[in-house]
Amino acid sequence: MRLDLDGIRAAHERIRPYIHRTPVLTSSRLDEASGVSLFFKCENLQKIGTFKARGATNAVFSLDDASAKRGVATHSSGNHGAAVARAAKLRGVRAHIVMPSNSARVKIRAVEGYGAQIAFCEPTEEAREAVCAELINKTGATLIHSFENEHVIAGQGTAAVEFVEDVSDLDVVMCPVGGGGLLSGTAVAAKSIRPNIKVIAVEPANADDAAQSFRAGRRIVTEKKFTIADGLRTNVGEPNFGIIQRYVDDILTVSEEAIVAAMRRIWDTMKIIIEPSAAVPYAAISEGMSGLSGKRVGIILTGGNIDLDALPWITTR
Amino acid sequence: MRLDLDGIRAAHERIRPYIHRTPVLTSSRLDEASGVSLFFKCENLQKIGTFKARGATNAVFSLDDASAKRGVATHSSGNHGAAVARAAKLRGVRAHIVMPSNSARVKIRAVEGYGAQIAFCEPTEEAREAVCAELINKTGATLIHSFENEHVIAGQGTAAVEFVEDVSDLDVVMCPVGGGGLLSGTAVAAKSIRPNIKVIAVEPANADDAAQSFRAGRRIVTEKKFTIADGLRTNVGEPNFGIIQRYVDDILTVSEEAIVAAMRRIWDTMKIIIEPSAAVPYAAISEGMSGLSGKRVGIILTGGNIDLDALPWITTR
Repeated sequence: MRLDLDGIRAAHERIRPYIHRTPVLTSSRLDEASGVSLFFKCENLQKIGTFKARGATNAVFSLDDASAKRGVATHSSGNHGAAVARAAKLRGVRAHIVMPSNSARVKIRAVEGYGAQIAFCEPTEEAREAVCAELINKTGATLIHSFENEHVIAGQGTAAVEFVEDVSDLDVVMCPVGGGGLLSGTAVAAKSIRPNIKVIAVEPANADDAAQSFRAGRRIVTEKKFTIADGLRTNVGEPNFGIIQRYVDDILTVSEEAIVAAMRRIWDTMKIIIEPSAAVPYAAISEGMSGLSGKRVGIILTGGNIDLDALPWITTR
Repeated sequence: MRLDLDGIRAAHERIRPYIHRTPVLTSSRLDEASGVSLFFKCENLQKIGTFKARGATNAVFSLDDASAKRGVATHSSGNHGAAVARAAKLRGVRAHIVMPSNSARVKIRAVEGYGAQIAFCEPTEEAREAVCAELINKTGATLIHSFENEHVIAGQGTAAVEFVEDVSDLDVVMCPVGGGGLLSGTAVAAKSIRPNIKVIAVEPANADDAAQSFRAGRRIVTEKKFTIADGLRTNVGEPNFGIIQRYVDDILTVSEEAIVAAMRRIWDTMKIIIEPSAAVPYAAISEGMSGLSGKRVGIILTGGNIDLDALPWITTR
């Protein structure tokens, strides 16, 4: 895959009118607790509440007019679907979003709100791909895959460009890894601008295919257990894994308990809403991940889309 | 009371090392829903989660060394208490905080965390003042009143200075009113820098002494009903009311239901945590407050300190 800093910078110019340059927040309380200088890139405050606005917007606006006219399609458990729906609305083209029937209500509502066509399917990877392929066959729409699409990856990398511009001398940048779209874009952007930076990814122990693959040196596809970090259940994509092998320094895993505790800690301390997937890197920090003491560590908080009626620390009747 | 822009600017210089310059966020979704261009000054992302860090820090750092050495004291249901405790810790002096015995746990923990001495009292204004007066008598500490203190008011006004600097051409600035510390500082700062700006305050209908007083042209002290906006239960202070009469354009009231709905809407849409008191101005907007269509309206989101185990839209068992 051709993915370089020039492509990411071009993506940044392309999507600039449609996204927020999100703030970087700090917390002296979390710094004291961890012994690390933490910087949080708040993509939860991004349009539609997730960094996924970046990649989808870049992909939709990279299409030539003839292709765009036939519409776009994707399958997504939610955030990427909303991102494609919004980008299509901004460009004035039709979007077909295939969603598993058990998607979170908040994510379904978001997609509907942008006027996209939703096709529900069984909650399996196979069903999603089959329904999407059928739609594309029928309509001529272009598939915008949520993490394997090159323009999506370039778009996701723009958050890291802003991050290293806004915070000087970051020693480490951390983000979660699911399919690897954000991680591969982040790694290329960060390492190209600042070659000595370390890029560390974190994923739930219950969905640790990326960590397994990274250690084995080959892409391993695993059957996933449940994880509350629903954005990270996916296996790493093939093109993503190639980039990860080349640019990423380490991949760590964290427990479900650590994810919920980290999420709650960030809500309580920083007064921002992050979804469980976004809490995964900080969970590694708060679990005492070694070697970062005194370092300047940037964490990408990936999203804030969560059902406020179903918080993991509250038992409702 | 001598309160002018010079005093507020001096406060800003004094407290700058100890506070965040908080971001201003926007939401196209909330703009579309209201027909107003909204700008949110995020004091929920301020140190200790509230604008009160500004006023208390200014008051504590305005003391001469001899006074500071004898310590500081205040009575507060929470946020101001935490703010004084933190400022005292930063200056290395002792703080005595008188808190009603029914204060929210999250607010008690915050005060304790800064190493202040807490004296609990009955949850009445009289008991708070009596216990605090006794402490001051015994220790020689300086009282830092949460809204009548001139340095506190000047400090609170610094948020509006940043706001009008960061957002050009604001037509209106809105904030909630309880004791009136924030409102009086905001009004002086905003009107001094931008004479044509309108300053509009909002309070819960269940605690509408400021609105009543404003209409009557004299300070009316009322018995308060319950309001979820616990930061706004206080009656407006005497010095504050003088400033409000001179500088404020209107004071509106909103229902409890509107406050909870506005809070939930901001959590859901903007992915930030605000406490009920902070939702009060946006509640007036979302209830269709007239005359602002097409205007550029700045809202100060005052704080984000809320018990995440007790959210108003969730019934726990």
